[in-house]
Amino acid sequence: MSDKTANIGVVGLAVMGSNLARNLASREGNTVAVYNRSHDKTEHLVSAHPEAGFIPTASYEEFAASLSQPRTAIIMVKAGRGTDAVIEELVQVFEPGDIIVDGGNALFTDTIRREKAVRDTGINFVGMGVSGGEEGALLGPSIMPGGSDESWVTLGPILKSIAAVAEGEPCVTHIGHDGAGHFVKMVHNGIEYADMQLIAEAYDLIRRGTGKSPAEIADVFAEWNSGELESYLIEITAEVLRQVDAETEKPLVDIIVDQAGAKGTGAWTVQTALDLGVPVSGIAEATFARSLSSHAEQRAVSRELPGPAQTLTVDDADSFIEDVRLALFASKIVAYSQGFDEIRAGAGAYNWNIDLGAVSKIWRGGCIIRAQFLNRIADAYSDAPELPVLLTAPYFVEALGRAQDAWRRIVSISAAAGLPAPAFSSSLAYYDGLRAERLPAALIQGQRDFFGAHTYKRIDKEGTFHTLWSGDRTEIEAEDTH
Amino acid sequence: MSDKTANIGVVGLAVMGSNLARNLASREGNTVAVYNRSHDKTEHLVSAHPEAGFIPTASYEEFAASLSQPRTAIIMVKAGRGTDAVIEELVQVFEPGDIIVDGGNALFTDTIRREKAVRDTGINFVGMGVSGGEEGALLGPSIMPGGSDESWVTLGPILKSIAAVAEGEPCVTHIGHDGAGHFVKMVHNGIEYADMQLIAEAYDLIRRGTGKSPAEIADVFAEWNSGELESYLIEITAEVLRQVDAETEKPLVDIIVDQAGAKGTGAWTVQTALDLGVPVSGIAEATFARSLSSHAEQRAVSRELPGPAQTLTVDDADSFIEDVRLALFASKIVAYSQGFDEIRAGAGAYNWNIDLGAVSKIWRGGCIIRAQFLNRIADAYSDAPELPVLLTAPYFVEALGRAQDAWRRIVSISAAAGLPAPAFSSSLAYYDGLRAERLPAALIQGQRDFFGAHTYKRIDKEGTFHTLWSGDRTEIEAEDTH
Repeated sequence: MSDKTANIGVVGLAVMGSNLARNLASREGNTVAVYNRSHDKTEHLVSAHPEAGFIPTASYEEFAASLSQPRTAIIMVKAGRGTDAVIEELVQVFEPGDIIVDGGNALFTDTIRREKAVRDTGINFVGMGVSGGEEGALLGPSIMPGGSDESWVTLGPILKSIAAVAEGEPCVTHIGHDGAGHFVKMVHNGIEYADMQLIAEAYDLIRRGTGKSPAEIADVFAEWNSGELESYLIEITAEVLRQVDAETEKPLVDIIVDQAGAKGTGAWTVQTALDLGVPVSGIAEATFARSLSSHAEQRAVSRELPGPAQTLTVDDADSFIEDVRLALFASKIVAYSQGFDEIRAGAGAYNWNIDLGAVSKIWRGGCIIRAQFLNRIADAYSDAPELPVLLTAPYFVEALGRAQDAWRRIVSISAAAGLPAPAFSSSLAYYDGLRAERLPAALIQGQRDFFGAHTYKRIDKEGTFHTLWSGDRTEIEAEDTH
Repeated sequence: MSDKTANIGVVGLAVMGSNLARNLASREGNTVAVYNRSHDKTEHLVSAHPEAGFIPTASYEEFAASLSQPRTAIIMVKAGRGTDAVIEELVQVFEPGDIIVDGGNALFTDTIRREKAVRDTGINFVGMGVSGGEEGALLGPSIMPGGSDESWVTLGPILKSIAAVAEGEPCVTHIGHDGAGHFVKMVHNGIEYADMQLIAEAYDLIRRGTGKSPAEIADVFAEWNSGELESYLIEITAEVLRQVDAETEKPLVDIIVDQAGAKGTGAWTVQTALDLGVPVSGIAEATFARSLSSHAEQRAVSRELPGPAQTLTVDDADSFIEDVRLALFASKIVAYSQGFDEIRAGAGAYNWNIDLGAVSKIWRGGCIIRAQFLNRIADAYSDAPELPVLLTAPYFVEALGRAQDAWRRIVSISAAAGLPAPAFSSSLAYYDGLRAERLPAALIQGQRDFFGAHTYKRIDKEGTFHTLWSGDRTEIEAEDTH
């Protein structure tokens, strides 16, 4: 064992863990202890990066002994049972006041459970969302820690040292207690699903509408990236579309099998939203679009289904592309609004004190959905911290007003031409539902009262009512418990 | 204690339980023991219905003693902890070979858990979905029992005696083992959500497009009910729309607050579909439409959001209404196809041997979604039991081909006019996604490989690949484990 004392340790040295450890070691004032179940990975990392000054450890005891107090360890293993196993080990060798951080992609309810269990030992447990992939972990991710205020005192400065920096501010903030960090990371990923699906629909429409090549469409995205859509995802879309397959000399996007994978965080976001009663239709459609794409056997038997007689024909490519851009921008506003709605609802349900403006700020750098746009969200919550719907902030109202005619045209054209645009059209339907003076939900309440005596409320007086549908069809006042 | 011996018992005598007990008692050969935690409810039921010949019991011991073997009891209590409590009591007084049936709206995973626990005692446990509301319970519901083959031997004849009858066949079948019955009941409810939302969108469009009154639209629905849309929900929609509020003399649908309630089974259906990777976008949009409608505080601040300059103007009301009818029919086909897809996937995941044609047949009577249409689903699965997508059956292909132009017009018009039609448009996008030769999911795979090294597959050879995006952008063969 080295006699150096580390102020932070990392357990789990696969790519994400190694990169995060190297990031930590590269910052002034940090000395990093590292541990991995198979020790050869530890040795490999340490010898490959002598500049990092890692303290390699071969057991949990050695790992704990190498850390100064309060001991602080970040677990970077695949989320699931492995995380529980590492926590059990660390709890054996750590002492009250020490800090165990889970930097994996845990489901926030697991984090709530773990935090409660670890807290009983006097040790702090922090569930921490980390976004930015392998490169982000190495160079500066966006970091979303939950956990106690006490742990933030020690952890805050360390995390600030390794986070991405956006407009001079580190992309990390103490999100809230127990599972708040992983909850916000989950919604981040859900928004990412929606954003990617919207970009995919935009690309598909432009390609089919204008006949432009992927390389030409790469130019379109590159240009969009200099405007209000400026974001990492738009930027890399241009890169992907420009890529030519060396073997076939065709655009790579035409060589890739069109079946999108998913690792489950989109589904979690939608499942959680359903528990919370938050309509996140854009994220749901994006998640479903991926699963639809991956059902090859169903698509194989469906290709001959009847389509429209007319395919899409665009007279003015430039104005069509501008319409698509506006449809993308408007739909993106809806997706983010729905995502922040879910965070607001989650904070309410789990008693987290989450600063929505701060969340938008830490997403400006390091993470996959980093975008210029997030400054506007920060502004919106700065002006009105209790804003019930993000898209009603003045900046977004202006943008939606400017975009909506184009958005409507694009949704109409897609439907007529038989081009699937589930996220564009769902976002528009959500927008029109939200602003509707009156919704046909009243008819649904009538149906529910008819077949299930579920009762309804009246617009003109207090109380709960039921019509005797199988009787003389008079109305009675009902108890509000049905 | 009476010396009569009952062949079936009911525990829990609220409206559903009482009605099911009365239904059982009314059938030749059944003698029904009844028990309720508060005995006055038992006494009230027995004295109100002397014709039923109920055997009232005041304790679980007495209840068990009044039943012939194998003892068979149906629990009709509110789903949740109460169900577990009753099961614990019954397990104390029942013997191996007896049958405990849960007729409540349990989540199928709870049913799987309970079945396993009860099976260890040698007693059979059957999770049973019951649809049809209070009236169905009394006169003949659609019944979806799970559980063991052994329990079906005893239970089958009893359930056949009380089920609704459609085209000469009782609306009950042994769905599959353990949680299969409650799973299918859950999806039934999810489809019901979608069907109701589609009807609500149809009504809304006709009203706003043609200016017809609810009573006039009631006539439209009544007429639709004589054609291919014939169903209970279309029938009661006409009834609800025709209803005039006695107090204000206005259409009741205009007096009911337009915030739709939900009891959670729609959300379960979508959450389960997300676990199974089945895109049930129509059910999801219907569930979200209800939650959107109920967020009064968000709608209040959103009414001034910019809408289109032009509102909907319809020149030919009759042809517009016919377009809406076809859009409704096509969207309904999608909703049912998605629902049956979920059942098929659930059967695969949980090793249930579910006869999809039999499921469609038992929904033809007694339940909320009973419809003429279900015969066509039965035909489809009779012709091709392994059909990967229901809507590719010849009957539906013909219907979709006939409907699709109108469907596309309605979705386009809704988008242009600012009228929310989330389920119509989502169903169309699903349909166009399914039949797409190529989806932009390939771009999503490219993005995922770019930012997360998630790898992709190629259309021209086996294997899994990764482009070195941060390096020289050559492609390498990758392990398929990322």
